[in-house]
Amino acid sequence: MALGELTEPDAPYTRRSFSPMFLKGREWLSQRFAEAGMAVRIDAGGNRIGRLAGADPASSTIMIGSHSDSVPSGGRFDGIAGVIAALEVVRALRNAGRALNHAVEVVDFLAEEPSEFGLSCIGSRAMAGCLLDDMLAYRNAGGETLVAAIDRMGGDAANITQARRDDIAAFLELHIEQGPILEATRTDLGIVSAIAGVTRVEIRFEGRADHAGTTPMHLRRDAGLGAAATMAFVAAEAGRLAGTDRGHFVATTGIVTLSPNAANVIPGEARLVVDIRAEDDGVLDAFLASLDAQTSAIAQATRIERAGWKILSRTRPAHCDPYLRKLLGQSARGLGYSTLDMASGAGHDAAFMSTIAPSAMVFVPCREGRSHMPEEWATPEAIAAGAATLLETAMRLDTEAVPADETPMQGAWQ
Amino acid sequence: MALGELTEPDAPYTRRSFSPMFLKGREWLSQRFAEAGMAVRIDAGGNRIGRLAGADPASSTIMIGSHSDSVPSGGRFDGIAGVIAALEVVRALRNAGRALNHAVEVVDFLAEEPSEFGLSCIGSRAMAGCLLDDMLAYRNAGGETLVAAIDRMGGDAANITQARRDDIAAFLELHIEQGPILEATRTDLGIVSAIAGVTRVEIRFEGRADHAGTTPMHLRRDAGLGAAATMAFVAAEAGRLAGTDRGHFVATTGIVTLSPNAANVIPGEARLVVDIRAEDDGVLDAFLASLDAQTSAIAQATRIERAGWKILSRTRPAHCDPYLRKLLGQSARGLGYSTLDMASGAGHDAAFMSTIAPSAMVFVPCREGRSHMPEEWATPEAIAAGAATLLETAMRLDTEAVPADETPMQGAWQ
Repeated sequence: MALGELTEPDAPYTRRSFSPMFLKGREWLSQRFAEAGMAVRIDAGGNRIGRLAGADPASSTIMIGSHSDSVPSGGRFDGIAGVIAALEVVRALRNAGRALNHAVEVVDFLAEEPSEFGLSCIGSRAMAGCLLDDMLAYRNAGGETLVAAIDRMGGDAANITQARRDDIAAFLELHIEQGPILEATRTDLGIVSAIAGVTRVEIRFEGRADHAGTTPMHLRRDAGLGAAATMAFVAAEAGRLAGTDRGHFVATTGIVTLSPNAANVIPGEARLVVDIRAEDDGVLDAFLASLDAQTSAIAQATRIERAGWKILSRTRPAHCDPYLRKLLGQSARGLGYSTLDMASGAGHDAAFMSTIAPSAMVFVPCREGRSHMPEEWATPEAIAAGAATLLETAMRLDTEAVPADETPMQGAWQ
Repeated sequence: MALGELTEPDAPYTRRSFSPMFLKGREWLSQRFAEAGMAVRIDAGGNRIGRLAGADPASSTIMIGSHSDSVPSGGRFDGIAGVIAALEVVRALRNAGRALNHAVEVVDFLAEEPSEFGLSCIGSRAMAGCLLDDMLAYRNAGGETLVAAIDRMGGDAANITQARRDDIAAFLELHIEQGPILEATRTDLGIVSAIAGVTRVEIRFEGRADHAGTTPMHLRRDAGLGAAATMAFVAAEAGRLAGTDRGHFVATTGIVTLSPNAANVIPGEARLVVDIRAEDDGVLDAFLASLDAQTSAIAQATRIERAGWKILSRTRPAHCDPYLRKLLGQSARGLGYSTLDMASGAGHDAAFMSTIAPSAMVFVPCREGRSHMPEEWATPEAIAAGAATLLETAMRLDTEAVPADETPMQGAWQ
């Protein structure tokens, strides 16, 4: 709650990545990390990390965390809850006088939410070695490069490869579900099976911005009609695919911008961004192909041009590590909590972390499944259940050998 | 061309009403008005007026003019041509040493184009006594009231009724056609029979701004889908009505704004503005009724709410004065120009002026019928033909008695 209160005052709860308010939140976090006995640093990718050394200096690292940035007018749990739960694991270990063999790191990844650079999961991409040079050259509306912004956050973008890690034994992330399933099934915790792949496509239609009063209906080239037909297709086709029993599938036309967007001018241009999420990458490919064909057909039928088709970002579905999933489930049930295996429709830093380390997530129910809005809410008890599960899992990981037939599937994803 | 060059530098040719650039254009106009021997003033409605006194102080006023504001990234002719042609009439009279019995006024009406207050024809509404108190309370995005903005333009909104005129013998307006008919028929000038009625409706849909990744397709309340279905209906129904031989009819969804308009959030709100134009007011009524019913049905079908239905503005079709039309046609043909009777699909200040004085318009062809864009173009010769016709008509009006069976139909419209 204290971190949540560090918000842009006119739009609670807003702590946009790269903003002064974001830095204020991180400063607050750094103090808590230090108070819990951790050494605090910022890696080359701008991730804020607290480290509790392990008893065995040769041991690898158990990393736990999430992110502290928010969407505009977002909530107090998406991201924050995972960072605070990780902090609580370290505090509980310290309070119990319990030292692990492994080092434990608490991480606050940089810019998990879509940032002003049109990119999400910037910090976990860097840690996974997936933050490419062309992405580093992205600019925000003010013209600042991502390189400069990462450095402004305390990172070192010129040496971004130094952010890549190969010493992580396991990555664990707690997050609110951001959906309605746990609440509806009255389950305490979700054990995430997979994180859906997320693809964003930008589509641009060009017509002709003629006068709305004098141009006869049959001579118009209205780019808005291309947008309308595309929006309808996206919803109908996604609804159909969601019913085909091939895992979680959703698609959304979240951004539509008409130009000039004036009452008395026929829209001459329309820009849409379609967000597509699939547990099964084949379904996503099939949807993309039909969206491509359909938007071309729409343009032809309405005498406009499909002037742009651009994949803005594409992440593959990430399957959580089977051994860590099992350990999380056993730990939770051992503590008396009910669990449910479920896919995540939202993207998470764990998806990138899964490419360099065994990774898994635990979901905490949130009220009405609502997220990315001020009303976002999870109970203290629910988050405490998730944090206790993380602690128990970390302690088991520290001592139990990984069974030979359950070797972490490191590197098998993405 | 000189006035056209006074534009926002990054978006030629833009001179939005109420902007500093608009005031710069008006200052330029004032100097030209004064150089032509006119007394320059601003009326209570913010209209810039130049007046050349008549030889007979008891005589009424012949008013000629149009507007100098533009749409965003508009052209150099829509509005400007009519103001400059009126100025040229006065300059020609002065150069010829010819004094009229009537006073001649050149007017630059305030904010003919849709303004930031969601209202068009603000100055001519004021002059016609049609600028109502509820309109004066409209606010722009910055929170300024229309009252304050009119005062900022040099008007006196608290005494808006002082802008109303009852001394105008005739109002004449030259304008580019903004459509393709004169060019296609190789006609020099259009004599306008009627100005279509213009109605603008604001429609707002409310759904729920849930997470685009985690909310299953069948549980969504996507306000964007209400917008898409409405856009498609407007185009289809308008196309049908345009083919029913009841005069000019068009309808356009020019403004669509989704909120929050973010890639990973289901649109929770959609705002649309639909612009409808009809020569036959009965057709417009029928369209409005079906749009009303249809948008309610769309909301129900998509599990969202039609949270708003607001008529932003409504003007009735205005029929031009038969005697002035005849005089304009005779003057044009006497000067050797071909003419065509035609309806105006665009709204004009003349529509409001027709409620308080005999009013008529002359149309000048424009290239490819294009308007409201930087490419807008009319030849100097075409505008000169229109200006010469205005001058000839003003001179005939000054001396010819109106035939008893052709009394101006003052007050018969609206």
